[in-house]
Amino acid sequence: MNSRQMSIPVTEQIAHPTRSELDLSAVLHALSDPVRLMIVAELAKAEHEYTCGSFALPVTKSTCTHHFKVLREAGLIKQRQQGTTRLNTLRRVDLEARFPGLLETILQAADDPELAVADVAAR
Amino acid sequence: MNSRQMSIPVTEQIAHPTRSELDLSAVLHALSDPVRLMIVAELAKAEHEYTCGSFALPVTKSTCTHHFKVLREAGLIKQRQQGTTRLNTLRRVDLEARFPGLLETILQAADDPELAVADVAAR
Repeated sequence: MNSRQMSIPVTEQIAHPTRSELDLSAVLHALSDPVRLMIVAELAKAEHEYTCGSFALPVTKSTCTHHFKVLREAGLIKQRQQGTTRLNTLRRVDLEARFPGLLETILQAADDPELAVADVAAR
Repeated sequence: MNSRQMSIPVTEQIAHPTRSELDLSAVLHALSDPVRLMIVAELAKAEHEYTCGSFALPVTKSTCTHHFKVLREAGLIKQRQQGTTRLNTLRRVDLEARFPGLLETILQAADDPELAVADVAAR
C-alpha cells in the first residue's frame, strides 16, 4: 500500500465493539497481559492520543501492534487512523458505564512499581 | 492409586501461592474464563467448602478439574484433600489484602444473569 492510499481516511474500517458488546471475559483477558496492562495504565494517564511507538515497551513493533489489536477488540481502546499511524485512546467512559469501577480497581491493583517491573521482566 | 493410599492426608502436597506471591496477571487470566468466573462467584456465596462436583457446570469432569487447578495456582482458591475429594474455598481475605476491591468489583461486573448465561453458552 503506498502513501497515497494510506492517506485516505479509513476510520470506518477499524472495527470496535459497541458499549453493549463489551464482554467481561474479553476485558479481563486483555488486561491479564502485563504489557497490555502497562499500555492501558499509560493511556489512563494520557491527555491526548498516543501512537503505538509512543510507548517504551520491552517488545517488538509487531508484538506491540498485536497487543493494541487485542485491546481494541476487547473494547479497551479506540483506534483511529491518521495517515500512516494509528492513534489510541482509552475507552474509559464506555468501560465505566458497562463495568462500574472495574478499570480503576484493576489500575490501582497494578499501580505497584515493584510488581509491574517484576511482571514485565519475567516475560 | 487405591483408596487406602488416597486416605493419607496430602494437604501439604497441594501447592498454593502465598499471599505476597499473588500475581495480578495470573488472577485476571484465571477470571477471564466464564466457567472459572462462575465457579468463583459460587464460592463467593458459599458458606462451606465445595467439591468440584457440587457445581452444575457445562463442562466435563476433567475440564472442571483443570479449571480448579488454574484457580488454585492463581491463588484464587484454597484446595484441601479429604479422602478422595478436594474441598475448595475462596481465598477472599488474601485477595482483598493483596488487591483491595478487585474481587468484589469483578464479581459485581459479572453479576448480570443475561451476560453470564450468554458468555458460558458461547463456549
